[in-house]
Amino acid sequence: MTDGREIQLASRPTGWPTPETFSLVEVRVPDPGPGQVLVRNVLMSVDPYMRGRMNDVKSYVPPFQVGAPLDGGAIGEVVTSRADGLRPGDMVLHGLGWRDYAVLDAASARRVDPDLAPLSTYLGVLGMTGLTAYAGLLDVAAFRPGETVFVSAAAGAVGNLVGQIAKLKGAARVVGSAGSAAKVRRLEEVGFDAAFDYHDGAVAGSLRAAAPDGIDVYFDNVGGDHLEAALGVLRTHGRVAVCGMISQYNSTEPPAAPRNLALLIGKRLTVRGFLVSDHGHLRDQFVGEMAGWLREGRIRYDETVVDGLENAPEAFLGLLRGENLGKMLVRLG
Amino acid sequence: MTDGREIQLASRPTGWPTPETFSLVEVRVPDPGPGQVLVRNVLMSVDPYMRGRMNDVKSYVPPFQVGAPLDGGAIGEVVTSRADGLRPGDMVLHGLGWRDYAVLDAASARRVDPDLAPLSTYLGVLGMTGLTAYAGLLDVAAFRPGETVFVSAAAGAVGNLVGQIAKLKGAARVVGSAGSAAKVRRLEEVGFDAAFDYHDGAVAGSLRAAAPDGIDVYFDNVGGDHLEAALGVLRTHGRVAVCGMISQYNSTEPPAAPRNLALLIGKRLTVRGFLVSDHGHLRDQFVGEMAGWLREGRIRYDETVVDGLENAPEAFLGLLRGENLGKMLVRLG
Repeated sequence: MTDGREIQLASRPTGWPTPETFSLVEVRVPDPGPGQVLVRNVLMSVDPYMRGRMNDVKSYVPPFQVGAPLDGGAIGEVVTSRADGLRPGDMVLHGLGWRDYAVLDAASARRVDPDLAPLSTYLGVLGMTGLTAYAGLLDVAAFRPGETVFVSAAAGAVGNLVGQIAKLKGAARVVGSAGSAAKVRRLEEVGFDAAFDYHDGAVAGSLRAAAPDGIDVYFDNVGGDHLEAALGVLRTHGRVAVCGMISQYNSTEPPAAPRNLALLIGKRLTVRGFLVSDHGHLRDQFVGEMAGWLREGRIRYDETVVDGLENAPEAFLGLLRGENLGKMLVRLG
Repeated sequence: MTDGREIQLASRPTGWPTPETFSLVEVRVPDPGPGQVLVRNVLMSVDPYMRGRMNDVKSYVPPFQVGAPLDGGAIGEVVTSRADGLRPGDMVLHGLGWRDYAVLDAASARRVDPDLAPLSTYLGVLGMTGLTAYAGLLDVAAFRPGETVFVSAAAGAVGNLVGQIAKLKGAARVVGSAGSAAKVRRLEEVGFDAAFDYHDGAVAGSLRAAAPDGIDVYFDNVGGDHLEAALGVLRTHGRVAVCGMISQYNSTEPPAAPRNLALLIGKRLTVRGFLVSDHGHLRDQFVGEMAGWLREGRIRYDETVVDGLENAPEAFLGLLRGENLGKMLVRLG
């Protein structure tokens, strides 16, 4: 047995989560059984989709349970192994974040090489975050060279990569929206052709000014007014990849909805929701391309790191408030 | 020169069109030039999409012009021909309805055979209407045998065929909505597994009762609450083919919009607008299959026929009010 801490769901939030949504609990972690490893987490991811799992609704992943630990992407070091192929000291990527120690089936852990790339990148630019951007843009939205792309929450981990991948793949123009002037500047630094702060007036007007000739692809992380604005400027046969709708996750009232969906008909638009889990077949291709871009210094990525498991709830709340630049991570131990 | 009448757009409607939206005007029709024919129309189609063309907005087809005749699908008899390959007495399908006589380039007219099928079917079940249903279901929504299909405005010309084609292609269950008890009965007669009157309570509840195990495909002719209800019951990887949103065509206020679009993500839904004009490559395959079904008596189609060009405006207004069963046609001359 090992003593450790975990973050549990204390209660289901209505609207915005608060510190009281979480509780930090001391637990005794059992020893690993045959085929298992005990892992000490060193890094964990907080992601917008976790908000949805706090609700008691049937969805693509089971909801978090009140009084049980949260979970999510994490990197840990193997402490004890009863599994072939994993040894103490190995670093592994797995799904049991939000806790100091985790006991895992070896099959649920993937070894990662800290000499090949910084550990954090396996959660971010080379991990689920990067694959989400890559698959959403290239597979779901079927982006083609010469097209114009708009991405919302473009200073976030996924959105930022969407814009940069689009440029590397030959986009004519890439436009991003973000939530502050500093973020807008950052988008321009990493190669966005235009960017705007969505607080500066109506999104529709800002987008029209930033993409006067229209767009071909909208990568949606926000929903609501952003989606409505995008539908307004999408060109014939345009596509929307719906990755997230963070503007709605904490709504207690029915959210704002695009009132111009009839545009789908005349413009023959396609709006498609997706989960990265359906696009695992692209992983090898993605890792190959992304690792090359990183080596050549052609992709830049931001990380916002918070220290200490006890601060993970605050990191998550900050993410929902948009306080991160790039990938939001919590460093443990 | 030939004397005839045509229906012109008298003024652009705001909200619902009225009889004053139209004017019946006596005109002199010029003689056909080289390569042209003079056609006397015998049958014309009124379609919901024509409402959109009454607005002065840029869209996939140019708007109707005030003081100029409306146009749309029609069948006429060649009276005078100055074109090779077309002779007086030939019946042709063309795009200059809403008038007694039309002068056409021969290339804009397609000869049809009244011995092969009733003339009206070239505008309806074997024409654009049928192809819209066929392409929308099979190509846009990628329907597969064993799936459950929901179609709105199912007593209308397109919706009715969507349901019947789905059954013929192996649908597990086909559900339709319509605007009266008589229409609901008609849907059951032609093979829908379940149907409901959308006036009977909220669409979401009616649909859930009619499709308790969910749906895979929604063929949207209505938009608004119908689309919201469909998103609610669509299964993972479900598809929506958006053919029309008739609930919105006469709105003077921003229309009701589905507030549950975030479901697109977890359920990985695809919503795709389409125009039949993009699916001409399916025409031969469609005509072959549909003609076979008609010969075998496996497809039934309804027509609502109004007599006289002077009554075409009322036929169109009746269509918008949902007074038709099946294809709405105007018989001329």
